[in-house]
Amino acid sequence: MQSYDQMSIEELQKEKEQLEKQYQEYCNLNLNLDMSRGKPSKAQLDLSQPMLDVLHSDSVLESRKGTDLRNYGVLDGIDEAKEMIAGMIGTRPDNVIVYGNASLNIMYDTINRSMVHGVLGHTPWYKLDKVKFLCPVPGYDRHFAITEFFGIDMINVPLYEDGPDMDMVEKLVSEDESVKGIWCVPKYSNPTGTSYSDETVRRFANLKPAAEDFRIYWDNAYCVHHLYPDRKDEILDIISECEKAGNPDMVYEFCSTSKITFSGSGISGLATSLRNKEDIVKQLSVQTIGFDKINQLRHVKFLKDQAGIAAHMEKHAALIRPKFELLLNRFEKELKGLGAGDWTSPNGGYFITYFANEGCAKNIVEKAKNAGVVLTGAGAPFPYKMDPKDSVIRLAPTLPPIEELDLACSVFIVCVKLASVERLLEK
Amino acid sequence: MQSYDQMSIEELQKEKEQLEKQYQEYCNLNLNLDMSRGKPSKAQLDLSQPMLDVLHSDSVLESRKGTDLRNYGVLDGIDEAKEMIAGMIGTRPDNVIVYGNASLNIMYDTINRSMVHGVLGHTPWYKLDKVKFLCPVPGYDRHFAITEFFGIDMINVPLYEDGPDMDMVEKLVSEDESVKGIWCVPKYSNPTGTSYSDETVRRFANLKPAAEDFRIYWDNAYCVHHLYPDRKDEILDIISECEKAGNPDMVYEFCSTSKITFSGSGISGLATSLRNKEDIVKQLSVQTIGFDKINQLRHVKFLKDQAGIAAHMEKHAALIRPKFELLLNRFEKELKGLGAGDWTSPNGGYFITYFANEGCAKNIVEKAKNAGVVLTGAGAPFPYKMDPKDSVIRLAPTLPPIEELDLACSVFIVCVKLASVERLLEK
Repeated sequence: MQSYDQMSIEELQKEKEQLEKQYQEYCNLNLNLDMSRGKPSKAQLDLSQPMLDVLHSDSVLESRKGTDLRNYGVLDGIDEAKEMIAGMIGTRPDNVIVYGNASLNIMYDTINRSMVHGVLGHTPWYKLDKVKFLCPVPGYDRHFAITEFFGIDMINVPLYEDGPDMDMVEKLVSEDESVKGIWCVPKYSNPTGTSYSDETVRRFANLKPAAEDFRIYWDNAYCVHHLYPDRKDEILDIISECEKAGNPDMVYEFCSTSKITFSGSGISGLATSLRNKEDIVKQLSVQTIGFDKINQLRHVKFLKDQAGIAAHMEKHAALIRPKFELLLNRFEKELKGLGAGDWTSPNGGYFITYFANEGCAKNIVEKAKNAGVVLTGAGAPFPYKMDPKDSVIRLAPTLPPIEELDLACSVFIVCVKLASVERLLEK
Repeated sequence: MQSYDQMSIEELQKEKEQLEKQYQEYCNLNLNLDMSRGKPSKAQLDLSQPMLDVLHSDSVLESRKGTDLRNYGVLDGIDEAKEMIAGMIGTRPDNVIVYGNASLNIMYDTINRSMVHGVLGHTPWYKLDKVKFLCPVPGYDRHFAITEFFGIDMINVPLYEDGPDMDMVEKLVSEDESVKGIWCVPKYSNPTGTSYSDETVRRFANLKPAAEDFRIYWDNAYCVHHLYPDRKDEILDIISECEKAGNPDMVYEFCSTSKITFSGSGISGLATSLRNKEDIVKQLSVQTIGFDKINQLRHVKFLKDQAGIAAHMEKHAALIRPKFELLLNRFEKELKGLGAGDWTSPNGGYFITYFANEGCAKNIVEKAKNAGVVLTGAGAPFPYKMDPKDSVIRLAPTLPPIEELDLACSVFIVCVKLASVERLLEK
């Protein structure tokens, strides 16, 4: 395939005309497709239907300890659920608080608590002139939405193949007392699929923050979300690495079953040091009387143990792997060597990131939209929705049925090509 | 029965000796009883076991609108659940946001949002020197814990038989811009069982607050929690009264199914004006991806409609009415006319309030504790746990089996008598 950047103006013009014709044909189809949302498909959700049978009117809704799970109480979750969550992320049950159905809500609450209450006795952030967060980019838009909501300044840090730019992280964290946190998705990162290397995790654990209330916000959202049986990324346990490094209180880790069972009706967990946990539970005791313990039991009865979770996740993988492979195979065949951008090939998670040529992302997303294919907004994976290179596009292959995905991919590829050619002709 | 205050010192001394003997006998029993917690009993929770069967693996988990309830989304709740919650409190479904399992959490979030985000564009409270809340007393300790947590000054307002002292409320609300809210439990109030008269509700709706971001925090926790089929308190709908009075945005109303189905696994709701709701949903969209919609559907399928709820609540009443009557009958027989205090006889809710003689509540609670009967802490129904008269004791009859309740009541009565006599002898 001839690369666009080696084409003459005339060749590019001709290519553009052909692409415009193709593009117009797609537009005429009046499509209504969506590759924007990191949601499980109907078939994936069907995998957990049997969870609705594990508890019924004859069930004794008691925990192992004999607590009546139907009543009030048990602020930090039932032991069985703590064990399950701890097993998923490789930490100890004692470190875990089991929450309700959304880990996003835990993250929001955690930032919120730091704002109004402070971290372990330190000054509440709202009393400070300036609070900053480091944001490895591209990253998860909902993380950035939380920090933006609270008026926290966000600083972009490049995310490489083995994790964030740790030289930059170390420098900023150790030199600036107003840097209070960093958002991390350490495994199968949203949206690139990056997993942090052992060295990266150790460098995180060994940070020497200027601020005593600096915390790592470790969103282990895709901890068990492998795509291939033989290519599984594994990361070090940040909590024990922080302990070893003498920084036991430096991390809050989040996870959930949202993309394991039912996205809207899962359980979620926060793992952290016992000192942090005690501080959090004290505040939680004002905020709530406890989370839904019946749903915690339902999850434990359905998923059983780590082997049960792994087996269940293989069923998910079997459903979504063909979707990832469809996109990757088509990109390989139709875009490789074309000089129209590059893309990630993750071993897990929910996204493929397409790195379009600089200045093309918005144009591609706009073109796709006009042809009836919704993509995640260009810029979404960056704080303030500002992609400095206008290059990153998050693709979410899981939700659409595979025929729709195929068609959406055709539209996407034409839009990528057309935007790339247009860009070259502008120069 | 001779009243204590008409006894001579000698008679009181003799009475005291007899009571001490009785008290000692109870102490020797090594009891372990609890009348402190406003929790449903096991038998009450059993009433909702069939709710675990209404959804099963063959169920289609779709809303009326066709939304897949297993997936992410639907921030303000499914229509069916909004209708159910609205029906419970007598408002319109459009005004409702359905949340997760605890209305306490909604209240916390609502105060919290006002602190960090402000109310409808007004200055966030954390930027103000002083924020005050009016607290009708006796009231609900968890309300006061929230306002105390956020450093909000609490001002006691007497709660009479038809509601709070409205002269005082009107004066404070209209004169002091730092008064931003008032906690209300308008029906079967915790702990006195008071329900607000129509006039009280209308005076609330017609408040002329100095602060534009003043709101009434209307915790309609016991909206359908009647004890007697023929003695039901009903209150006016505060939301429509506020609309009529030209104060449509002045109220946040809270309720839940916690004491209808499973205390720890119910659904809860916030009802307010559309303007307030829009402001809240905007913030909620940062905080969460949505609440547990499957549990919303489960509740609707189980409770069906308002008639279904009423029928279900009658079953609760049949279980707890004998417990209330046990206490009330014994108080009537053993304490009436004794000059040892007075008590409420509510038509609904979860509590009886015992008004001990001034200066006796702590002593009674302490004595009961030492005899193995846990009561709600003296002072708990007041901000900062300070009962200015040391008089109010909240009794929670629902949780213990009736034989245990009977025994706990015996201990309580002896403690009341003994503390009253001791107090008279001190003078």
